[in-house]
Amino acid sequence: MDHDTAARTTLIRTASEAGSRVFATILTRSPISRIDIARQTGLSQAAVTKAVSPLVAAGLVDAPPATQRDGNPGRPAAPVSIVPDAMVMLGVKVNVDEVIGVATDLATNVLVSESRPLAAHDPGAATDAIAAVVSALEEALGDKTDAIAGIGVSVSGDVDTSSGVVRESAIMGWSDEPFGADLQERLGRPVTLENDVHALTVGEHWFGVGLGTESFAIVTIGRGIGSGLHLNGQVVTGAYGVSGEIGHLPLADPSRICPCGRRGCVEAVASTPAIEASLSAALGRDVGIDEAVQLAHAGDAAADAAFREAAALVGTAIATLVNLTGPELVIIGGEGVADFDLYDATLRDAFAAHAFGAAARCRIVVRPHTFQDWARGAAAAAIQSLVR
Amino acid sequence: MDHDTAARTTLIRTASEAGSRVFATILTRSPISRIDIARQTGLSQAAVTKAVSPLVAAGLVDAPPATQRDGNPGRPAAPVSIVPDAMVMLGVKVNVDEVIGVATDLATNVLVSESRPLAAHDPGAATDAIAAVVSALEEALGDKTDAIAGIGVSVSGDVDTSSGVVRESAIMGWSDEPFGADLQERLGRPVTLENDVHALTVGEHWFGVGLGTESFAIVTIGRGIGSGLHLNGQVVTGAYGVSGEIGHLPLADPSRICPCGRRGCVEAVASTPAIEASLSAALGRDVGIDEAVQLAHAGDAAADAAFREAAALVGTAIATLVNLTGPELVIIGGEGVADFDLYDATLRDAFAAHAFGAAARCRIVVRPHTFQDWARGAAAAAIQSLVR
Repeated sequence: MDHDTAARTTLIRTASEAGSRVFATILTRSPISRIDIARQTGLSQAAVTKAVSPLVAAGLVDAPPATQRDGNPGRPAAPVSIVPDAMVMLGVKVNVDEVIGVATDLATNVLVSESRPLAAHDPGAATDAIAAVVSALEEALGDKTDAIAGIGVSVSGDVDTSSGVVRESAIMGWSDEPFGADLQERLGRPVTLENDVHALTVGEHWFGVGLGTESFAIVTIGRGIGSGLHLNGQVVTGAYGVSGEIGHLPLADPSRICPCGRRGCVEAVASTPAIEASLSAALGRDVGIDEAVQLAHAGDAAADAAFREAAALVGTAIATLVNLTGPELVIIGGEGVADFDLYDATLRDAFAAHAFGAAARCRIVVRPHTFQDWARGAAAAAIQSLVR
Repeated sequence: MDHDTAARTTLIRTASEAGSRVFATILTRSPISRIDIARQTGLSQAAVTKAVSPLVAAGLVDAPPATQRDGNPGRPAAPVSIVPDAMVMLGVKVNVDEVIGVATDLATNVLVSESRPLAAHDPGAATDAIAAVVSALEEALGDKTDAIAGIGVSVSGDVDTSSGVVRESAIMGWSDEPFGADLQERLGRPVTLENDVHALTVGEHWFGVGLGTESFAIVTIGRGIGSGLHLNGQVVTGAYGVSGEIGHLPLADPSRICPCGRRGCVEAVASTPAIEASLSAALGRDVGIDEAVQLAHAGDAAADAAFREAAALVGTAIATLVNLTGPELVIIGGEGVADFDLYDATLRDAFAAHAFGAAARCRIVVRPHTFQDWARGAAAAAIQSLVR
């Protein structure tokens, strides 16, 4: 980290609450006038001007000189903007078979991207793969490496961000793993560990379709089934770091046992491995998800039934989430949306059957996030962690 | 409304966003120092002092003169307090067989309380009963009647607070009922219509055990089953006015049809009428809830089974709520808690079986809200509606 980046990081971390709020508002809404910042934050214009000034001096925020026309330098109506180049953040998503990393600027624009396969699932192998991705990103960044402020890393499961511990990750097979601290030591950079769907939710609020909406949920389908909630303008992280565990709502028949050990979880029926297991049992042979998709598209009754069962349960789970939290928008993502035609009608029917009253007005949209988007979400979560 | 009350109401309603935030903070945390208000709101101390000043001038907030000892009048560390007597608010809870009303001061202390039976369920009968309760409250208030700023009315169901329409209330049998506007015309006072559990959640944040906790849920059991969510320091109202509909989560067998028309709702099994119906079917005769409780306490197997089925489903529903939103605390209320011994162990076992990871640390406490508490919640919601 060069001197400028260190000074900027310190400035953000040690800002007053008003200063943090002003910076967070500029980050997510840049360009924005000081008047609008005051409106968004509830601060006086004088307080906003006072908070903006050190950000400008540190090169984090750009306040353009007044135009010839109004001849009134620094007038509050002139918009201020984030300086994207002021900092570089790395974001890494750990998948079950691959590690994907991006380097972004302060506006979460992706500068470079790298990935490495993950042959084994133990934390050591994941650390090695992340270190290799980070090295490759650093090489690709060249001179900009000095501007790296830290790394956001996102993993599926119950992640305690404050301590950097992965408490439980069924997909990775980890429990009580001090992954954040180990990574930080290995990489020599600040590491922010986050649940992957929470990180995607933070990212979606910044750069995605959720932008401007105060209440939305992301629901991801595929190998795991997760969700992230953004209500009243804030991500819901849970008092104990757990929230959005839509894959572990007890909506399925209790005879279906989830890999997590609980009965009747949504994932026990609707995850990719559950669809594979259900179809394999029906056909009496091992069927992978790619073949399952082909069979369903070809009209195979057993494959069709397996996807319908999964889709109905996901639609019911979304109705459950919507009845409880009433968002304006649900964004469906995850690798399963590549074959969303197999889910669409059944999922929406089940949602309609169980959504309560006006909550049913919630729009459901599908968004095929790339793995880069997930890594970008990890970078966004790390940028956000500087502010809070 | 006398001149003072009208002026105070106008001042609150037309305050800047900073002014509103300062007043809301004083309302819920009074007495509080200006320094702590600045900390809570993120405003500068100068902005807080500026916002407090008109509230003091209008008699809404008390800023005591400095003590002899420090001799520094108006120093920011001296706490400011709400003036409870500055305003009176009425709160009314509409039950299926009774209307309960309270008059509270600005700190939601109950001044007087009145109730009237509700013989019929149509909106006209409810309006008559509310008018009678309001008249009785006014008489009891005497001179203080002039200080009434408005009325909060809470009803079970899907309530659109902004338009004052009860969109759907299964318990009352109403749909798309412009109840708020009709009441306002009848009473000649501003009416704030709210979902009853949302109102109780607002009240609980102010005067209840949830105070100081940024994330809690209230779950009510009894004739209806509802919930209210308070996350990240704010009540979750839902983008379309619906949230916390825990009674209509599709967690029961689809063969169980809910009075709302949907299949598998929690209320279809766990509400008081559902317990009555289930036990009546088992015993081949009509059994009311009081007899059901007696039979269960006497060890009757069928009654025991009916309560266990209800308790297991409520526990499963609480786990669902907790897995999604991760609160620190769940408060169980509603008239059903009078017989909570019949629910306790089974409910907690079901919660433990389905709560995910660290979310399971959420504490579950029982709080026997009186109907007065519900009415007080309606008054709190009306006070809050002045601010927002």
